[in-house]
Amino acid sequence: MCSGILPLIQTKSVPTGDAAWEAKRKAILDDFISKVPEDYYIPQEYVDNPPLDVTDIPRKCGILTPEELEITENYDAVGLAPPSPYASTLPSRLQLPSASAQLLHTNIKEHMAIAGRTSSYGYVSTIEHTLDDAHMVSILRSLGAVFYVKTNQPQVLMHLESDSHLGRVLNPHNIHLSAGGSTGGEAALIALHGSVLGVGTDIGGSVRGPAGFCGIYGFKPTCYTLPMGGFLPHGFSAELNVLCSTGPMCGSLRDMDFFMRAVLGTGPHLTDPLVLPTPWAGLKTPLQAGQPLKIGIMTTDGAIQPQPPVSRALDWAASRLAPLAGVELKSYNPYNAAEAMTLIQQMYWPEGGLGVKRTPAAAGEPIHPLTQYIINDVESATKLTASDITRHRVQRNNFRAAFAQDWTSQDVDVVLCPVFVGPACAHDTAFYWNYTALWNFVDYPGAVFPTPIEAGKKGEEVYPKDVKEPLSGQCRHVRQLWEETDFVGAPIALQLVARKHYDNLLFGALEAIREVLGLS
Amino acid sequence: MCSGILPLIQTKSVPTGDAAWEAKRKAILDDFISKVPEDYYIPQEYVDNPPLDVTDIPRKCGILTPEELEITENYDAVGLAPPSPYASTLPSRLQLPSASAQLLHTNIKEHMAIAGRTSSYGYVSTIEHTLDDAHMVSILRSLGAVFYVKTNQPQVLMHLESDSHLGRVLNPHNIHLSAGGSTGGEAALIALHGSVLGVGTDIGGSVRGPAGFCGIYGFKPTCYTLPMGGFLPHGFSAELNVLCSTGPMCGSLRDMDFFMRAVLGTGPHLTDPLVLPTPWAGLKTPLQAGQPLKIGIMTTDGAIQPQPPVSRALDWAASRLAPLAGVELKSYNPYNAAEAMTLIQQMYWPEGGLGVKRTPAAAGEPIHPLTQYIINDVESATKLTASDITRHRVQRNNFRAAFAQDWTSQDVDVVLCPVFVGPACAHDTAFYWNYTALWNFVDYPGAVFPTPIEAGKKGEEVYPKDVKEPLSGQCRHVRQLWEETDFVGAPIALQLVARKHYDNLLFGALEAIREVLGLS
Repeated sequence: MCSGILPLIQTKSVPTGDAAWEAKRKAILDDFISKVPEDYYIPQEYVDNPPLDVTDIPRKCGILTPEELEITENYDAVGLAPPSPYASTLPSRLQLPSASAQLLHTNIKEHMAIAGRTSSYGYVSTIEHTLDDAHMVSILRSLGAVFYVKTNQPQVLMHLESDSHLGRVLNPHNIHLSAGGSTGGEAALIALHGSVLGVGTDIGGSVRGPAGFCGIYGFKPTCYTLPMGGFLPHGFSAELNVLCSTGPMCGSLRDMDFFMRAVLGTGPHLTDPLVLPTPWAGLKTPLQAGQPLKIGIMTTDGAIQPQPPVSRALDWAASRLAPLAGVELKSYNPYNAAEAMTLIQQMYWPEGGLGVKRTPAAAGEPIHPLTQYIINDVESATKLTASDITRHRVQRNNFRAAFAQDWTSQDVDVVLCPVFVGPACAHDTAFYWNYTALWNFVDYPGAVFPTPIEAGKKGEEVYPKDVKEPLSGQCRHVRQLWEETDFVGAPIALQLVARKHYDNLLFGALEAIREVLGLS
Repeated sequence: MCSGILPLIQTKSVPTGDAAWEAKRKAILDDFISKVPEDYYIPQEYVDNPPLDVTDIPRKCGILTPEELEITENYDAVGLAPPSPYASTLPSRLQLPSASAQLLHTNIKEHMAIAGRTSSYGYVSTIEHTLDDAHMVSILRSLGAVFYVKTNQPQVLMHLESDSHLGRVLNPHNIHLSAGGSTGGEAALIALHGSVLGVGTDIGGSVRGPAGFCGIYGFKPTCYTLPMGGFLPHGFSAELNVLCSTGPMCGSLRDMDFFMRAVLGTGPHLTDPLVLPTPWAGLKTPLQAGQPLKIGIMTTDGAIQPQPPVSRALDWAASRLAPLAGVELKSYNPYNAAEAMTLIQQMYWPEGGLGVKRTPAAAGEPIHPLTQYIINDVESATKLTASDITRHRVQRNNFRAAFAQDWTSQDVDVVLCPVFVGPACAHDTAFYWNYTALWNFVDYPGAVFPTPIEAGKKGEEVYPKDVKEPLSGQCRHVRQLWEETDFVGAPIALQLVARKHYDNLLFGALEAIREVLGLS
């Protein structure tokens, strides 16, 4: 069935550990490779001479039949679900389980428990066999989902490059760029049409970042909107003050809506009391009658000016939205975004970053570059007492209240803003999560969608003339990365954000702007 | 204006501290007394020879005019609010601020911030002047509330006897019994018709316990339903895993509903993002069409059998409800209630109970008996690390999920259960909060309402014959307290509980049973 040599495009290898650990890794990879049917192997020519943009490979490599390609290339989950004829007549290799299936071919991120499989926190010593499905997995299974692959994530989970002992995820639009993280495997797979729907987790941008990097759709709901039970069964200390959220990643706006309606329709709050009972109106949410939809345009967070194509995408969206009846555009400046980033970074590590500092290295596992970056970030973190954590909580609540009151004073319904400081970055350079983590700190829902804008060749585009001095040291570094990197082909996504618990309104607003922004 | 000797009925004094501390207390009390108009002093005969039941004193003491009494004795907040003629023509001593007032004469618990007043955690060294209104206070003020007194609470807040440096609150139905706590001052005042509406906080029973002890109505909503900003501005470590809630205390069911509608109608979630946006249907919540309302009757938690009048009140309610069309009664047994109590007691003290163990005594303040009881409770508590607190959180979440799934399997909409192990207990014996704290641990909303049942004279009533061996050591102790105490005149209340976030359904159910149970 399998030659044992998986043809794999790797532009930048992951670091090597000690011999004993490498033996463990080899066993894990051998086991993985043994499960991949050889007739799914890509031709060796792609490995020997890979194109920069690999999104064409599934269409051109000859593995899929024309009928299979018709389905993978042209259908989203809504299109495939009943009453579509494909709901009952899909080719056998696409594994549709039954005609009643509503959600097809979900993948799912490595750390999420699937009964009878392994899961981990992104490093070898945390691998464990899981006996039970995570709550979300059991819901999706009940809706007819097929779980056929778990996708890669970062070492220690807490950064935005999806590189673990399993290898490194590449950006399908430009293999020298990152696919983002922590849900980067999922994003790249969906961008390649290898799956119609996936599930990510997001405590700093881990759904939205990779969705934006790979040019797909991703949604981080307000925390406790969707169930997380069994995702991290031993808990996660960061969540004492910064909650993680979970949400869909997929190829269309209507699939995000479909996912939310299907999952919430099962009443997950009855099983997991952390989940809020949320009636889902989604895209059908009525906007306030007789009032314009007030969209705040946030061109900068005041700390890091986005790289040029991001500003260009915002300008493009504003120019499309401005003439739209029923929409009022405003300028929006976020309240103390830099302070939010400082606070969230303190609050991620109440146990002093112990898991990140010690655990992988102790087992002989090499520390990856962005793991080291995070370690530097937490070097100053100390173990906090309950009183310290409580003080943080008061700080967090006070910040959130001030932020909400400022949002009210700016009188916006939703805010359109960048997803990241730039397009998908070069490997191992995803340093600044500010444009996503801000919304985690205040727990506002955020949806990411692609635009037709993409980055051109290195040197083709410069910062607008009206942007003068860098806003901060980080801003200067981001400019330097812009000068150094060839981002060619990287898609530019935007993020629409609403107030905490206004997830339905967010989708109502997305529906209102869907057509002019060309959302699918 | 004031003689300096306030006539005060005190059946059991609070302990005495060292001389320096007593001097501080005297200054605080002198300041307090100076603010009480002398024509509000009760006649000295009540102090010299107090009746057991003091609820008649306001009616008989001659301080209030017949017109004032007509209002205080016969009107609730809904009755007084517009379009009532009293909304604009109340006697001046009743201090109604304006004809637009919707909420009248709120009092408010000592620890809640009122601009320009002092607040404390129930002991002298924590007294501070507060510059700003708590969020709830500012909302009530905007609705026309008059704040004319802050009410007493327990030393260190965390027990159920409202005894602080300010003195001890007595139960107005039997002054040898406790008014409960921690919102006991509020409950006693409302029971005496000194106020129509108050606000309590509840992390173990502090709204529901005193409401039940004093024979009034009280509601602890699901946490984050109502705003708590400024109630404990320095935070409270217990809330890392056991959240506090806040809710109304008053003389009628419709006033609880009125309070919820009025406060939620101001959109408090826009100011404080901790607050959930909850549309309030309350008493008008429709029950499921074509389905009976399934009421679980919980006669015991399996750990402590309630004292006889409580069982009698449950029997009375069941006999009234059984013939009611559209209601289905079931027996309900809570999932592992004893374990919930053990866990919540561990989770109250993540900082090792430091504030309770050291702070009052260090300032020369005497430790009150139930404070000492709590200190014994936390003696084994150690300072927890973030990892410990995270482990607790996982335990809590797992318990809550198991409890919710068990609730589903018992197929009930609401549960009718005791408020406390007995009627209002003798002073300094409120040891077992199990029947309220269980619902804090799972964060289920609970409303307390009075019944016509009251305790008879000591020795008149015994445990039912079918109750044989005590269920536990605590159960044996509760029986011993039953034998030792004369509870005569103590009102018996019951508690109706619904699933987390089903606060509206709870009120819909209360409306359905209102008439047969004689709720006002």
